[in-house]
Amino acid sequence: MNLDICLQEWMPLIELELQQVVALADGPGLESLHQMLAYHMGWNGEGAGVEARGKRIRPCLVLLVAAAAGAEWQSAIPAAAAVELVHNFSLIHDDIEDNSTLRRGRPTLWVKWGVPQALNAGDAMFTLAHLAVIRLQETISPQLTLRAAHLLQETCLRLTQGQYMDIAYEKRGDLTTEAYWPMISGKTAALLEACTGLGALVAGVSDSTYQHYRSFGHYLGLAFQAQDDLLGIWGEAALTGKSCESDLLSGKMSLPILYGLQQGGSFAKRWAEGPITPDEAPALSAQLEQEGAREYTQAKADELTAQALCALHQTHPRSGACQALETLSRLLLRRHM
Amino acid sequence: MNLDICLQEWMPLIELELQQVVALADGPGLESLHQMLAYHMGWNGEGAGVEARGKRIRPCLVLLVAAAAGAEWQSAIPAAAAVELVHNFSLIHDDIEDNSTLRRGRPTLWVKWGVPQALNAGDAMFTLAHLAVIRLQETISPQLTLRAAHLLQETCLRLTQGQYMDIAYEKRGDLTTEAYWPMISGKTAALLEACTGLGALVAGVSDSTYQHYRSFGHYLGLAFQAQDDLLGIWGEAALTGKSCESDLLSGKMSLPILYGLQQGGSFAKRWAEGPITPDEAPALSAQLEQEGAREYTQAKADELTAQALCALHQTHPRSGACQALETLSRLLLRRHM
Repeated sequence: MNLDICLQEWMPLIELELQQVVALADGPGLESLHQMLAYHMGWNGEGAGVEARGKRIRPCLVLLVAAAAGAEWQSAIPAAAAVELVHNFSLIHDDIEDNSTLRRGRPTLWVKWGVPQALNAGDAMFTLAHLAVIRLQETISPQLTLRAAHLLQETCLRLTQGQYMDIAYEKRGDLTTEAYWPMISGKTAALLEACTGLGALVAGVSDSTYQHYRSFGHYLGLAFQAQDDLLGIWGEAALTGKSCESDLLSGKMSLPILYGLQQGGSFAKRWAEGPITPDEAPALSAQLEQEGAREYTQAKADELTAQALCALHQTHPRSGACQALETLSRLLLRRHM
Repeated sequence: MNLDICLQEWMPLIELELQQVVALADGPGLESLHQMLAYHMGWNGEGAGVEARGKRIRPCLVLLVAAAAGAEWQSAIPAAAAVELVHNFSLIHDDIEDNSTLRRGRPTLWVKWGVPQALNAGDAMFTLAHLAVIRLQETISPQLTLRAAHLLQETCLRLTQGQYMDIAYEKRGDLTTEAYWPMISGKTAALLEACTGLGALVAGVSDSTYQHYRSFGHYLGLAFQAQDDLLGIWGEAALTGKSCESDLLSGKMSLPILYGLQQGGSFAKRWAEGPITPDEAPALSAQLEQEGAREYTQAKADELTAQALCALHQTHPRSGACQALETLSRLLLRRHM
């Protein structure tokens, strides 16, 4: 099972399912609502295309896990669409909450259509995600479909809990790395845990295997975020698609920054004095590295990756799909989703 | 079956179920998120109490229909909580979209905690509604629970579609009463249709009876909105809890106003010239009445009420519960929810 070949075969079917679900929002007099959703999904409007869609890594993870756990991957397509819709709903609302004007290189929904319509379009996307997962009843039993719906809803609750912490943290100067893990468990890891959990549910695995698959997604999510935070300061712009040291400039409470604050050294002193200017950023990222933040973050990311792969192997996955999952994990840990 | 006695018995149990579901959002470090949700539900903070909670008419409608259709009303409690949570989620987001500073006489969530946290708290409430309806699996079959979840999700989609139209209409001067019905079908009637549909689903009625119950809720919702629009211009402040002619001042596209615009008379001419001042409002509401808008709106509300009650009787409801439903309908058509 080759990842590239899978992606080539699966991607058009994921996209088709997504389009069918999003079309549920369309109707007489509702063309512009549908247009907003399709714009955000990267299907229409200026700059539409593959780049504007994101990598659709989450739906691929669902399908790969379903295959690894012994299901026909096709039967997991409704779940794959559901997680991608949840991801995109959360981006629409995050962009409003963070006042972000660009998403995947294009103006955000609220910039183009105003906050009220963008907020409401996000609600519509949220609902579509729940409608998507219920479509599983066409491929699996009502009992399993209900478990899948429940997992997706619990995941959404954890997303909002993580987002609550993220917003609340912005105003606090007393945070340590302890505060980091519950936040990204909700903001990042919960949805990847849902991806692997949904794939396993569709395959109807035992409870212990199900838990191992969820752990795989959970640790993968934490590892991804730690790695992403590292790249947010020391990554090459070409690799990350954003400028170097950008997390220093935006003041994001990322793992290396929280580590640096905890050390109470030169970095922490400068941070307390107010926003960092682009001129200072290179010297400050070097200072942070010297204080051990880069090494600490890399070690955490490596440890979490190892935990993820350990959990994956405990599921006794089908070997072809397992290899593809390892490739996907490596891809995820180097690049933005 | 006396409505007052039912309400007295049911209300504490509805409130308990709501509190249990909302508590799912709580946890270490999440106390303020839970506090926001509890504030909006009228349970804590300044001004908390019965007045701050709204009338909880929707959950009562679910339980009454369940009883009328032959179920134990207790088994419908998760569905009753779900519709109330959907209603409250939509209020949190509507208040942001409409820039409303007061809700049931208290500062709105975004005024107290800022837009980002209020938006996210609304998302949490939305998720809790979906978690609430899934709790039906403790009282009814997985198949029926899935149908209930699907109905709730379709309803949420219709809510966002109605809200899309409402926001889009604000900028248009070319609307007729034709544009009104699809908007309020989504904004108001869909949720009442979900109330009656969920109650009927829990009772496991036949498809035709289910459709009649949904029609009852649908027409009741349309009738309620037409009546509410009438009271928004010609109601007594004491009755409606808001000042007279307030829809004239806010420029809301209500049914009598759309009717007046369609006539193209003195009212329409004045309306086109810009916002109405409080001084002008009494004369303008008299003008609108003279042009036939009040009579038209009352006739529509009466016609829709008759359609609602006709649909109700076609369900062959249990006589005690039917009487209570008729009383609730009358209550709904005179007062705000």
